[in-house]
Amino acid sequence: MSPTSSIQKTAAGFDKPIPEIGIGMLGYAFMGKAHTNAFKTLPYMMYPPPAMPRLVAICGRGESQVAEAAQRYGYEAHYTDWRDMLEDERVQLFDNCGSNDIHAAPTILAAQMGKHVICEKPLARNAEEARSMLDAVTKAGVKHMVGFNYRFVPAVRLARELIQSGKLGRIYHFRAAYLQEWLLPHYDLPFAWRMDKKLSGSGALGDLGAHAIDLARYLIGEVKTVSAITVAFVPERRLPIGEGHGKVTVDDAFASLVEFHSGAIGTIEASRFAAGNRNRNSFEINGERGSIRFDLERLNELQVYFVDDPAETQGFRTVSVTESVHPWISNWWPHGHIIGWEHTFVHEMAHLLDCIVNDKDVAPLGATFEDGYINAVICDAILKSAETKRQVDVQPGLETERLKNYETNQP
Amino acid sequence: MSPTSSIQKTAAGFDKPIPEIGIGMLGYAFMGKAHTNAFKTLPYMMYPPPAMPRLVAICGRGESQVAEAAQRYGYEAHYTDWRDMLEDERVQLFDNCGSNDIHAAPTILAAQMGKHVICEKPLARNAEEARSMLDAVTKAGVKHMVGFNYRFVPAVRLARELIQSGKLGRIYHFRAAYLQEWLLPHYDLPFAWRMDKKLSGSGALGDLGAHAIDLARYLIGEVKTVSAITVAFVPERRLPIGEGHGKVTVDDAFASLVEFHSGAIGTIEASRFAAGNRNRNSFEINGERGSIRFDLERLNELQVYFVDDPAETQGFRTVSVTESVHPWISNWWPHGHIIGWEHTFVHEMAHLLDCIVNDKDVAPLGATFEDGYINAVICDAILKSAETKRQVDVQPGLETERLKNYETNQP
Amino acid sequence: MSPTSSIQKTAAGFDKPIPEIGIGMLGYAFMGKAHTNAFKTLPYMMYPPPAMPRLVAICGRGESQVAEAAQRYGYEAHYTDWRDMLEDERVQLFDNCGSNDIHAAPTILAAQMGKHVICEKPLARNAEEARSMLDAVTKAGVKHMVGFNYRFVPAVRLARELIQSGKLGRIYHFRAAYLQEWLLPHYDLPFAWRMDKKLSGSGALGDLGAHAIDLARYLIGEVKTVSAITVAFVPERRLPIGEGHGKVTVDDAFASLVEFHSGAIGTIEASRFAAGNRNRNSFEINGERGSIRFDLERLNELQVYFVDDPAETQGFRTVSVTESVHPWISNWWPHGHIIGWEHTFVHEMAHLLDCIVNDKDVAPLGATFEDGYINAVICDAILKSAETKRQVDVQPGLETERLKNYETNQP
Amino acid sequence: MSPTSSIQKTAAGFDKPIPEIGIGMLGYAFMGKAHTNAFKTLPYMMYPPPAMPRLVAICGRGESQVAEAAQRYGYEAHYTDWRDMLEDERVQLFDNCGSNDIHAAPTILAAQMGKHVICEKPLARNAEEARSMLDAVTKAGVKHMVGFNYRFVPAVRLARELIQSGKLGRIYHFRAAYLQEWLLPHYDLPFAWRMDKKLSGSGALGDLGAHAIDLARYLIGEVKTVSAITVAFVPERRLPIGEGHGKVTVDDAFASLVEFHSGAIGTIEASRFAAGNRNRNSFEINGERGSIRFDLERLNELQVYFVDDPAETQGFRTVSVTESVHPWISNWWPHGHIIGWEHTFVHEMAHLLDCIVNDKDVAPLGATFEDGYINAVICDAILKSAETKRQVDVQPGLETERLKNYETNQP
Repeated sequence: MSPTSSIQKTAAGFDKPIPEIGIGMLGYAFMGKAHTNAFKTLPYMMYPPPAMPRLVAICGRGESQVAEAAQRYGYEAHYTDWRDMLEDERVQLFDNCGSNDIHAAPTILAAQMGKHVICEKPLARNAEEARSMLDAVTKAGVKHMVGFNYRFVPAVRLARELIQSGKLGRIYHFRAAYLQEWLLPHYDLPFAWRMDKKLSGSGALGDLGAHAIDLARYLIGEVKTVSAITVAFVPERRLPIGEGHGKVTVDDAFASLVEFHSGAIGTIEASRFAAGNRNRNSFEINGERGSIRFDLERLNELQVYFVDDPAETQGFRTVSVTESVHPWISNWWPHGHIIGWEHTFVHEMAHLLDCIVNDKDVAPLGATFEDGYINAVICDAILKSAETKRQVDVQPGLETERLKNYETNQP
Repeated sequence: MSPTSSIQKTAAGFDKPIPEIGIGMLGYAFMGKAHTNAFKTLPYMMYPPPAMPRLVAICGRGESQVAEAAQRYGYEAHYTDWRDMLEDERVQLFDNCGSNDIHAAPTILAAQMGKHVICEKPLARNAEEARSMLDAVTKAGVKHMVGFNYRFVPAVRLARELIQSGKLGRIYHFRAAYLQEWLLPHYDLPFAWRMDKKLSGSGALGDLGAHAIDLARYLIGEVKTVSAITVAFVPERRLPIGEGHGKVTVDDAFASLVEFHSGAIGTIEASRFAAGNRNRNSFEINGERGSIRFDLERLNELQVYFVDDPAETQGFRTVSVTESVHPWISNWWPHGHIIGWEHTFVHEMAHLLDCIVNDKDVAPLGATFEDGYINAVICDAILKSAETKRQVDVQPGLETERLKNYETNQP
Repeated sequence: MSPTSSIQKTAAGFDKPIPEIGIGMLGYAFMGKAHTNAFKTLPYMMYPPPAMPRLVAICGRGESQVAEAAQRYGYEAHYTDWRDMLEDERVQLFDNCGSNDIHAAPTILAAQMGKHVICEKPLARNAEEARSMLDAVTKAGVKHMVGFNYRFVPAVRLARELIQSGKLGRIYHFRAAYLQEWLLPHYDLPFAWRMDKKLSGSGALGDLGAHAIDLARYLIGEVKTVSAITVAFVPERRLPIGEGHGKVTVDDAFASLVEFHSGAIGTIEASRFAAGNRNRNSFEINGERGSIRFDLERLNELQVYFVDDPAETQGFRTVSVTESVHPWISNWWPHGHIIGWEHTFVHEMAHLLDCIVNDKDVAPLGATFEDGYINAVICDAILKSAETKRQVDVQPGLETERLKNYETNQP
Repeated sequence: MSPTSSIQKTAAGFDKPIPEIGIGMLGYAFMGKAHTNAFKTLPYMMYPPPAMPRLVAICGRGESQVAEAAQRYGYEAHYTDWRDMLEDERVQLFDNCGSNDIHAAPTILAAQMGKHVICEKPLARNAEEARSMLDAVTKAGVKHMVGFNYRFVPAVRLARELIQSGKLGRIYHFRAAYLQEWLLPHYDLPFAWRMDKKLSGSGALGDLGAHAIDLARYLIGEVKTVSAITVAFVPERRLPIGEGHGKVTVDDAFASLVEFHSGAIGTIEASRFAAGNRNRNSFEINGERGSIRFDLERLNELQVYFVDDPAETQGFRTVSVTESVHPWISNWWPHGHIIGWEHTFVHEMAHLLDCIVNDKDVAPLGATFEDGYINAVICDAILKSAETKRQVDVQPGLETERLKNYETNQP
């Protein structure tokens, strides 16, 4: 009897059986590993789980590699063509961890086949492609999520709760920088799909900036305008095999100014050329009654400041977001026993399974394809602003009702 | 076909089959959960694993709770008497996560039955009890480990490697404080076994101090003398059920001075009354050529200072111990994607399994029962010093050969 | 015999007499106090001083207040009309610590009268006014300095030296935010000259942003383009006396994107609405071979990262910029004994006196009126960009020779 | 008219004349410079000053050096024999910045001549010598202060106020380490008076430890017992002139355990061998309702934690102790404009002058010779404990009344 099947029956002390959801995974690299780990961990850590993920199949281009991945992670089957995997009727949730250029087609087909879908970010290479994906899942009526996993950092969710509860008052500033460094010359990385606009859509923007933009929307609200610059510091790179160089057609870094519909202003930037910044997804928020600072490299901490503290002992508090009162933490360890980066996916997948089996809304706790689409609209606007050297209005072109909410509502 | 059994055959691309080790777990609370998570995670994260842990059985006093734990974690069987579990021939490795008063008997029996053993720290309630356990495993010839999991923090192992390689030169100072706060009056915790000397042996000393002492030995070397004070700030606590109070017979905190055989001096202390310190297992080491600082609440970081850096840019470096060159990290994620506290157990169990199936030495990477025994000798010396108000020599009474090493060798 | 006159003769062991420079100070508030403290401190701390400042006269609008200031600080005379003070022949150096609207007229007159001048920042309310001041001092051939005192923070100068020496390689990013909070609603500050565009020129931009812009130029080089947004969160404020409200006609905050002639990009922003940020003049610089971080609230520290450090111990170093090898520090205390904010002025004034008596160049160590003028051009461009919602080229309109240097030279 | 004499008359707006106190300074090196700077700065920064310090005379062994010091700092006269200086009737306050071996004799004589005295720490080389100094000033009825300047760090005084007000509740722990590094081998410092027990009394103990002990008493209260170890890592050092080596007869480092009369326990240690620690005078205090952390290298900050903060936003606050509500700060700059190490002396001297001219108590804000004596008693007890390897009771042997207060009162 396998560990998982035993729990599928009933969690002891819980009176209804735990349903099973069959997973079909596309990709076995960085994201495939992270998502798979989440599916394997959540049944006993997010206990009792909303559903038991069944690792039905994994798909990748290399036959031997995908076979090994299946064996390593315990997938029941493996495929080299995603169409074949989607035909597997046991697959109920399609998890797209592929590269940006294979986000749209498999995801749309999966939705059309009635499967729920989760797709890694950025949802698509541009807004048009993202819109087609949004339209497909909407029409199909399936659950859909984009892998903006940083919504599932306990400290980030705490930040949102503090803002929503009014503890920071009116928000004035959002200041985000997602900084990495792996394209610096001394790493001598060869040309890769991430540097090719046709395959990736954009560079630091879609890879890192999309995360920062999603947090901006999640925490502050909808974006009204953007002004931006992009730059490619290293215009071409050696090919990984053979001689010659590939032309870098995406941004190595970008920086943007944003105006929110709420009246707040912000800066959002990202770079792969920021030495010493391993994975610094950081933001600072300043409001009428307090401020917040976050840095992903210390993801268990949130810096919080309140203007209402007594003058003599005011100061940013370094909150260890590991208390049982903090989001998701009661599933883990006693306070001060920090959790790792990959736990964001455990929270994310548990939420998605909950939405699927209990027909709950993925948003706003998680990001939907609508969020993925609006994110792509903003990315497109950033690229357009950089090109035209003008401020650009963000106009997702969704229904009037929703747009009205943009302008008047808090996130 | 279960995920695990599929990997047991062979890891693709590896030519020898992966052996299986049957686990018998005593305890399903904090430590039981942490150890179990490690056994479930290591097969695909420490890939290919040295052995496949098979979750044979779990044991606990409460029938319904242990049954649920078995179901939750995927143990094949459950027991309420550890003697019964030890009779289960599938159990090859006995994992003792019970309270301190049931460390000795089950572990000794398991060893006598030829099972490998891992026991949570402190190994025993005092040196005498620890010695009996050491003698048992030695006589049985089984592998033995004590759960000093902080040896398996990548940053801690890096600290040791820096010291061993001579990069800090001669060591002068070791300064350790393991601070928690959960016994502070405002938490109003009731009386528990941890406050009863008969059940626990000691208080903050055995619970937290033992960790700090193990790191002292792991990093700096053997201890020659100790001077200590202990204190009980709250002498009695309400009983959890019914009326009345229990007398606290252990230390709420202790502080000690240590002299190492190497000539270094140090302070080691621990408290459960240090407000704001969630789980601050911290140390600083000062050597002839550099210094190191560590804090478990930021366990992915190590502060390192080198006197040989140019004067104008000398300073403590905040090293993100998440590089692929760092211990164990290549099993996880790209740099800057931090790992959690529980990953220390993943490393620990992978090491133990490797030692078992490949007949390797558990020490010095891991702590053996010898380490657990010497640790207990030091704890006893601390209590004796506090009582007699005198400096006490640490004399483990092991074989001459080993003692000679104490005094002359580096750790 | 007064302390100062005794030193004017000769510093013991130094063979030439120390000349005296007569100071005429306009303003006795925040900046007047800081400048005066510098003049009183430098003779014995920057020993032997290049010149002995003689506190000739101080000028302010309120008779009794300026009389008390003269007595408090030891000025020999006081005036209520700056024209009268400038007539005092003992005044050789005119120090303008007045509000922005009285920067131009007294400074121009002083220069025309052949007096050396130092003027607090921003040099003027706009580029045109600044240009008239630059033209006046150039024509008069006097020494001129703008009070960009943060060039005189040892850590900032160290940052520059690291960049200039090539230790960071090619610079990619500059990221500056000068954040204060004193206009937040809960402080309930009344309307003041700093909120009136006619008197101040701009708000956070000229007050705080000008500092950040000066550091951008000092550290990275000349700015090619800017894109910006400005915002006024609180559009009107109660008058300090009587009833009614004044209209805030300046920016409460601004954010800008900059492209440097060198190819680096950056963000520069400032706010007076950033709760918890007392005086956070901060920047981060990312280069090909390293990075730097600075925060004025910890002005004795510089964070430095080098890509050439061994992978296992790479990390931002927290450099205590208090070593005798660091700029100016040998004048102060042993390392680790930190210096205060006001010492920047001690360094600044010592440099200015040195330039005056030894006919040295104020730039690049200090900022000249040319720097003040270019700074104003950039501020004007930021305001224009915010208004037109377009990227704006920075074109100071100086001589061709200089402009060529802009584009090709390092700072 | 000199700056100072003009203020001696009356501060404008204040109706009584400001008295003058004549200073006689012994020593012109590190401490002489720091004290002199304080006397020169306080008249206009601690405005209006309680008294105008008049720099009457400075004394040192080298004729030419002391002559230059007089000229540099503006002392009216200089002497090479302190007896001669004490004969100068203009000297009203004798400031002893000499080495430890000349603390007693000149200070006692000064007191006998009716002069007020301030003496650098440690007051004396041992308790006996300190007692003779205490007896002398008591008998003479003059004001007396020991230079424990860290009582005058605004953050330290804030810490005391928080404790005294009960905001931390009952205190459990005090954990202090004063760490420097200048004796590390790579500095290759020659033998000096500080390494000779006859001249200095002790090493790191009297130099650094005395500061930590004073803060322990200032913040927590009187010490009941100590247990200690001392160590000399480098037993001899080359002579500064000629050949040969001097024997180091003092401690390079010490560590001690302390029990306070209040029931709190603590560790106090100091070292000159702690690489990377420039001047890290640090402590942590844990109480029933909160905690405090301090580090002199960031002396403008205090870390404060309160158990009463809401669970979700609890954390150490980094308080910028630069608010006008903080001790002494209203004399300086707006918040966030940090002050330097030497400002502690400005506060200290202003307090001493205030006590002299207004006959106020030096303690508890400042340290008296009684504090200096008790401090020496504790230092002696530490040395005795290290020698005897036993816990030692601290018994100052003062009057019964005072001792009773030790045991029952808060500091």
